[in-house]
Amino acid sequence: MKLATLKMSGRDGRLHLVSRDLTRCVAARDATTLQQALDSWAVSAPMLEEEARGLEAGEWLGVEEFVPEQCAAPLPRAYQWADGSAYVNHVELVRKARGAEMPPSFWTDPLMYQGGSDSFLGPRDPIQMADEAWGIDFEAEIAVITDDVPMGVGADEARSHIKLLMLVNDVSLRNLIPGELAKGFGFFQSKPSSAFSPVAVTPDELGAAWGDGKVHLPLITHLNGQPFGRPNAGIDMTFDFGQLIAHAARTRPLAAGTIVGSGTISNKGADGGPGRPVSEGGAGYSCIAEQRTVETLLTGSPKTPFMKFGDRVRIEMLGANSNSLFGAIEQEVVRYQRQS
Amino acid sequence: MKLATLKMSGRDGRLHLVSRDLTRCVAARDATTLQQALDSWAVSAPMLEEEARGLEAGEWLGVEEFVPEQCAAPLPRAYQWADGSAYVNHVELVRKARGAEMPPSFWTDPLMYQGGSDSFLGPRDPIQMADEAWGIDFEAEIAVITDDVPMGVGADEARSHIKLLMLVNDVSLRNLIPGELAKGFGFFQSKPSSAFSPVAVTPDELGAAWGDGKVHLPLITHLNGQPFGRPNAGIDMTFDFGQLIAHAARTRPLAAGTIVGSGTISNKGADGGPGRPVSEGGAGYSCIAEQRTVETLLTGSPKTPFMKFGDRVRIEMLGANSNSLFGAIEQEVVRYQRQS
Repeated sequence: MKLATLKMSGRDGRLHLVSRDLTRCVAARDATTLQQALDSWAVSAPMLEEEARGLEAGEWLGVEEFVPEQCAAPLPRAYQWADGSAYVNHVELVRKARGAEMPPSFWTDPLMYQGGSDSFLGPRDPIQMADEAWGIDFEAEIAVITDDVPMGVGADEARSHIKLLMLVNDVSLRNLIPGELAKGFGFFQSKPSSAFSPVAVTPDELGAAWGDGKVHLPLITHLNGQPFGRPNAGIDMTFDFGQLIAHAARTRPLAAGTIVGSGTISNKGADGGPGRPVSEGGAGYSCIAEQRTVETLLTGSPKTPFMKFGDRVRIEMLGANSNSLFGAIEQEVVRYQRQS
Repeated sequence: MKLATLKMSGRDGRLHLVSRDLTRCVAARDATTLQQALDSWAVSAPMLEEEARGLEAGEWLGVEEFVPEQCAAPLPRAYQWADGSAYVNHVELVRKARGAEMPPSFWTDPLMYQGGSDSFLGPRDPIQMADEAWGIDFEAEIAVITDDVPMGVGADEARSHIKLLMLVNDVSLRNLIPGELAKGFGFFQSKPSSAFSPVAVTPDELGAAWGDGKVHLPLITHLNGQPFGRPNAGIDMTFDFGQLIAHAARTRPLAAGTIVGSGTISNKGADGGPGRPVSEGGAGYSCIAEQRTVETLLTGSPKTPFMKFGDRVRIEMLGANSNSLFGAIEQEVVRYQRQS
């Protein structure tokens, strides 16, 4: 089933079931909000599945057109956002560009940071920033939502706790990152509110594309209407979602509604080196920073600027029939103006 | 007023008003949970204040004995836990002990990390850990809870968004920290679930001890029944809570119910050097790591071990009449055993 949260009824919105083709939706009867459904997923999921079947069959009254612009993030606010960096290729490239060695342990011990989860953006919400000089970038990722995960869970068992999948734009402020990481406490100001896809879907909606805790499909990014990246999320993912969840749960339990991210999706080039741009027939990139890194490696300096006010990013994943699986994240960068 | 969340009615517990002397409590009428109250604080706070006055006056039916063992954290799960490190003295000491320079910017740019907020511990909940070798430590801190804070807020205005104060035990796994910080993404496994005091209080409950965005009282820590620390939280706090909130809100808004922590409270010694242990008449420490650091600086090696299974920590703050302001955090470290 596919679930969306429409902007109404307060901070947590109103949970809706969405038709597989993303054209129709209906307010869920058995849960008001997605967090409420996740809090008792074993009970609520079968009831919601039944409602979803009714929606597909055209049995329900109250069905409305599904309008992504009306969506909040599936979880408009969450109790946890733990973002991995599972495409180690991406990490190695970025380090290489600044002449830094990557420790070999990065291939066996997942990188993960704790992100802010109190103020997520909807899929069409603008990215409001006060200063272009912060180096505004997107990061196209996949994320999963879990139910309650016990402390110390193994990777195999962890996969059974994956209840929903979404796309993410993990907005990043590149020029604030070096200073923050140098302080040693990780990201804070450099990771403003993330945005999520219009719908969250159960893994079965992906069919054979979901396997081994990975999504085996390209994640498609456009920048200002031009193709920017289409790396396959199932390729070069060093740590699957089961391993990422197990990493997060090593010293504490994870509460239902925990969101775990894949990190920026990145594929190596056909020759095993850096991936080439889409314009040269490559898989391209899921963030501007990686394109700039490759430019630096090839030509000595970056060419592609970070996002300016008015720039737009679109992130989407297509199924076998070119149908949009999650709907598209589509955001414009706008200058932040304080409302009194 | 003083507010507590009792463990009942599901994951978010049940909001109670607690008498000023922490002996009696009554279920709040105008909000079921603390998050619900915070979501509309301007409306709910005056109603809760009225209920609190009735409780003090003995007007209410349904008043029960207040039992801290029945408490969850005031927010059993929260949408944000942003922990500063405002006592720069603490940071400088720890760095000095390992021979590292502290950048001068640490005196002007707050350190802050994003903590996990999905599974907080109640004030008397055990600290369950699988391995003593992780270096189990406490960190005694103060935290504030905010209402909605706009992006880009200044420190002065930020102070007006402080609605409640609590004590925190920011449990830390010292032997996991160096490896995590070396990876550059900050803390994750090394910061398991934090515990909070039995009650959260409005700033007016502190009287003159609340001023300039700081709490001007000693924070008292006992380890296994012995005095361990009593540094004054109003002294050597380089960044007040207004500055910490402004730092957190620089590139994104903070949603109601955001918890911002002070970091480990630490005072310099009378001579401006490292603080001395309580046993030598000093203010002592708010975490074992700092005591070990001072031992290392003075004698070349640490003497005090980290916590073992069965060890207990108690964290409390007393008012003018030696009354407990927040109730005591009192926790035992126990071996984690997975419940199937």
